[in-house]
Amino acid sequence: MWDVAEELSAMLVFAEHRYYGESLPFGASSFKDSRRLNFLTSEQALADFAELIKHLKRTIPGAENQPVIAIGGSYGGMLAAWFRMKYPHMVVGALAASAPIWQFEDLVPCSVFMKIVTTDFRKSGPNCSESIRKSWDAINRLSNTGGGLQWLTEALHLCNPLTSQDIRKLKDWISETWVNLAMVDYPYASNFLQPLPAWPIQVVCQYLKNPNESDSLLVQNIFLALNVYYNYSGQAKCLNISKTATSNLGSLGWSYQACTEMVMPFCTNGVDDMFEPYMWNLKEFSDNCLKLWGVRPRPSWITTMYGGKNISSHTNIVFSNGELDPWSGGGVTKDITDTLVAVTISEGAHHLDLRANNALDPMSVLLARSLEVKHMKKWIREFQESVEKQQ
Amino acid sequence: MWDVAEELSAMLVFAEHRYYGESLPFGASSFKDSRRLNFLTSEQALADFAELIKHLKRTIPGAENQPVIAIGGSYGGMLAAWFRMKYPHMVVGALAASAPIWQFEDLVPCSVFMKIVTTDFRKSGPNCSESIRKSWDAINRLSNTGGGLQWLTEALHLCNPLTSQDIRKLKDWISETWVNLAMVDYPYASNFLQPLPAWPIQVVCQYLKNPNESDSLLVQNIFLALNVYYNYSGQAKCLNISKTATSNLGSLGWSYQACTEMVMPFCTNGVDDMFEPYMWNLKEFSDNCLKLWGVRPRPSWITTMYGGKNISSHTNIVFSNGELDPWSGGGVTKDITDTLVAVTISEGAHHLDLRANNALDPMSVLLARSLEVKHMKKWIREFQESVEKQQ
Repeated sequence: MWDVAEELSAMLVFAEHRYYGESLPFGASSFKDSRRLNFLTSEQALADFAELIKHLKRTIPGAENQPVIAIGGSYGGMLAAWFRMKYPHMVVGALAASAPIWQFEDLVPCSVFMKIVTTDFRKSGPNCSESIRKSWDAINRLSNTGGGLQWLTEALHLCNPLTSQDIRKLKDWISETWVNLAMVDYPYASNFLQPLPAWPIQVVCQYLKNPNESDSLLVQNIFLALNVYYNYSGQAKCLNISKTATSNLGSLGWSYQACTEMVMPFCTNGVDDMFEPYMWNLKEFSDNCLKLWGVRPRPSWITTMYGGKNISSHTNIVFSNGELDPWSGGGVTKDITDTLVAVTISEGAHHLDLRANNALDPMSVLLARSLEVKHMKKWIREFQESVEKQQ
Repeated sequence: MWDVAEELSAMLVFAEHRYYGESLPFGASSFKDSRRLNFLTSEQALADFAELIKHLKRTIPGAENQPVIAIGGSYGGMLAAWFRMKYPHMVVGALAASAPIWQFEDLVPCSVFMKIVTTDFRKSGPNCSESIRKSWDAINRLSNTGGGLQWLTEALHLCNPLTSQDIRKLKDWISETWVNLAMVDYPYASNFLQPLPAWPIQVVCQYLKNPNESDSLLVQNIFLALNVYYNYSGQAKCLNISKTATSNLGSLGWSYQACTEMVMPFCTNGVDDMFEPYMWNLKEFSDNCLKLWGVRPRPSWITTMYGGKNISSHTNIVFSNGELDPWSGGGVTKDITDTLVAVTISEGAHHLDLRANNALDPMSVLLARSLEVKHMKKWIREFQESVEKQQ
């Protein structure tokens, strides 16, 4: 974005989403109860952006008659797309990078996400995904033996001793680690969720070449693989199964949003993916939301509000997706119309295109960025033409 | 609508707006305080319609894959247009009849509304608007004399004796009566706000031919004119200056909405219109809202939310307006694009086109209706073509 802003002589504005970072409408008690949390919705966030743009146009000299483009990645990419859909009078177009706007209800199969994670591991080293697939039963068997829990605690260098109740949580934590690696499988060393080497899944897979080893060797290799993610910097003394990322991306706010609007079904079958089978269970999910936040989710609302797959009447949105990115499964990866365009980055993970230029950028992301800029320039040109026509 | 529904084999659904009629979210206490009234917004109403359409499609056999068209008049017309703008995936198009979507901020001059009212009276009888223009000072002079208040009370057949504090209210009530007559100046006897004869302003103007009469004769003629509106049925024993319509159109809900989102500036200058000069005063308006409802209005919000004049990226909306209707001043009366179309009814008052066919319908409304149906058929045809293409 920094590079492109310079090319377009654009001002970059980063709008902080309400209830994230310092934008807490009720200060420290913003997350205290559902009454205070009522104002945390995507519609309200979009309205904030509309007010912000109006404010900037009113107060920044020269800004008033300039075109605005919405840009975002991930949830921010969904917001960028939705903002163009709901406030087309405010932005001439939107770049929605890695925006899984279809990861709702049954718009895509709930299995697609974990299938892509699996494919990333399968392609990053021989037997890699197969080793992970076999690791779950190894953990299950070890956790059933007498000294197994203590052995697992030590083999995985965990900060806190495992109890048998922790095994589900341990496996979820490991799964989430593989998911996160798939999201940040960038071609150069980076630090988005964690400091990581270039192509981190390839590094991880170097430890996961033999799925037919004994349970204990397999688990020891899993540790070495996890350690790439959690201890690339060499600072970690032990691994904490309550945490999967060091940087704070606002997990509290997202947890509430997932329990209200952002209900994303995920599932696995253990055959087409490398995970233990898991069926999506809305009832269980909803009960958990009631416990956590005192609310029940509205799984259909996002589709009702933003149109689901029926969005062809909108214009000027570029949906970009990296093929390595599990979120691409819920994204728009085929053109919908001439002006609702899909850009695919074959060697890209989660919104690689939004990152700064890098000498190691693969050709596919360079092409994607130039396509994106081409569309932005077109939106700006058309805006200027329509202004001239009015005069 | 009934006639056209038959022609299109359509189902008609009348959605009751929340906080109106029987749709009271907190029952009898729905208007008790601003906390309960928080849910009365146009956005929430649109969301209700979206949920309603989904529900109907799910539950009515055969409805699921049918196209839907939003239709409304007046505020309902604004909602119809806004619904197509915000939920284009839910309706293939909208007919927004007499929808003053630009009667906000400075999108149109605040004087335009009362100018149209004045024109209606000027064209409905010789000296008619001039007589009304002169009546205000006549009332002012009479109310300043000793027995004047009592005389006025009797001459106007008021239910309650006037005090000098009531004179402002009396004149506002008379003004609103002229406004209402302009809205319902239909070519045949009707009963929208009140039971009325055909072309009621012409009937009213028969009593207002001589602006140069004495104050007392002028006021007596004003009574005869008002009596056309308030006592066409012959049932009224006296006139009540606290009421301008017998039918209940939800004035409570609208009063709150006018004090939050629906801030519509009106003004007069007494020269280009037949009223006493009145400057739009947002501060005064806002203070009054605080007193009435404990809220202050957000005069810019409707423009921020719905785009003001910058709506050309939307499609498939017909804006119809009657030239006799004062609300046409804040309406869309010129085509914006090929699919955002203005239909003008030269002999039409407030959403005449939505009324049932009548032998006395002027040619202009027949033409308007046939244009509207033409557009509806086009929307439906395009919808069916796009469905066929997907199969």
